[in-house]
Amino acid sequence: MSAAITIERILALQARYTRCIDNNALEEWPDLFADECLYVVTTAENHRNGYPSGIIYADTKNMLVDRVTALRQANVYEKQSYRHILGLPNVTKNDDAGAESETPFLVVRIMHDGQTSIFATGVYLDTYRNAGSDLKFGRRIAVCDSSRIDTLLALPL
Amino acid sequence: MSAAITIERILALQARYTRCIDNNALEEWPDLFADECLYVVTTAENHRNGYPSGIIYADTKNMLVDRVTALRQANVYEKQSYRHILGLPNVTKNDDAGAESETPFLVVRIMHDGQTSIFATGVYLDTYRNAGSDLKFGRRIAVCDSSRIDTLLALPL
Amino acid sequence: MSAAITIERILALQARYTRCIDNNALEEWPDLFADECLYVVTTAENHRNGYPSGIIYADTKNMLVDRVTALRQANVYEKQSYRHILGLPNVTKNDDAGAESETPFLVVRIMHDGQTSIFATGVYLDTYRNAGSDLKFGRRIAVCDSSRIDTLLALPL
Repeated sequence: MSAAITIERILALQARYTRCIDNNALEEWPDLFADECLYVVTTAENHRNGYPSGIIYADTKNMLVDRVTALRQANVYEKQSYRHILGLPNVTKNDDAGAESETPFLVVRIMHDGQTSIFATGVYLDTYRNAGSDLKFGRRIAVCDSSRIDTLLALPL
Repeated sequence: MSAAITIERILALQARYTRCIDNNALEEWPDLFADECLYVVTTAENHRNGYPSGIIYADTKNMLVDRVTALRQANVYEKQSYRHILGLPNVTKNDDAGAESETPFLVVRIMHDGQTSIFATGVYLDTYRNAGSDLKFGRRIAVCDSSRIDTLLALPL
Repeated sequence: MSAAITIERILALQARYTRCIDNNALEEWPDLFADECLYVVTTAENHRNGYPSGIIYADTKNMLVDRVTALRQANVYEKQSYRHILGLPNVTKNDDAGAESETPFLVVRIMHDGQTSIFATGVYLDTYRNAGSDLKFGRRIAVCDSSRIDTLLALPL
């Protein structure tokens, strides 16, 4: 029996992730990660050089929950919204030991006054884990192409 | 026997839709809808507040056909073109009673002089219907993120 | 036995293609084409009018390899990077005689100082060929929506 994860399940998880954030259903976001997880937002330059991320680093699920709480208190979502457009996942590994993929992303930011601009582009480096019948992220590293990213808000990408 | 609609058919319908518009094959556009259909373009703010759309509202197939005729008479497509980039559909329901999905979109507008800019972002809220062997939209609500949308042209999104 | 190519394989090839370019793994790019191949970058206007491309034209695999060498010598990738976001492929033909698809693209350019902008949008007109167990492009015509494309660099789209 193959343990390979179907592309259909990978697409579904990717789509649910962006929906959480863009629909302002942030409270559902941590649950898309496995219990043991890593979530990092970094830049291509830092990633290439092996430097630690200067943007977001969370290696427990609780840290993800805390981040949501902080964003709610800051009322970040009152002032702007985001729209993620994902490219096709490139599944780079998929066998008994697990699946890995690279998925390009483009995030557009829409300010309260309607102004729309490209907020970030980059690639998600993901690993997947089966958690019962659900598929979850074991690791998601969002590598931003530009180093000029607005780190003040540190919303999840 | 399950009545669930395959993701493959959903992807194919989504892709055909954007092709109609971006290839300027607008006359094929109404036929992607079921005979009883609803097509609405609105803003996130109006949608959230339950206000009627101020942009496009069509609840018969004839209204879609009329819109194409009007756009042709206005020669809108002489002056500009559009490029839709869709994210992955998030299928939120898929059972005997039918399928529903949410699909993020980004529309880029290319003016006659070559200037390129983000025209709109948002999400399509869709329901699907089987019409013989074809899959069609029962309902498509295009919810635009920004309220600053150029409503003058009212091209189909 | 049907010779139809699965949508899964088409998605995988499309994803690998953008990965090559955006990850700066250009040396792998020619190998995504069949031995007899055609790769063209043109504008919608030229394409519509049947004019030859003014941007890139390569009808042998060697020409693709040469292009990579030239880009390396020009150090183009030191100064900028690209991010391709593809829409869903619209498979317009898929039978014993082969498969064809149209896939919308958006390419964002990220300059060395972090500035991010839309570089090009358009559609890939592709044909596919089985090469042993691999799927490859027989023909890829990248039709850019805008005529105002920066042809100086002529990086592969």
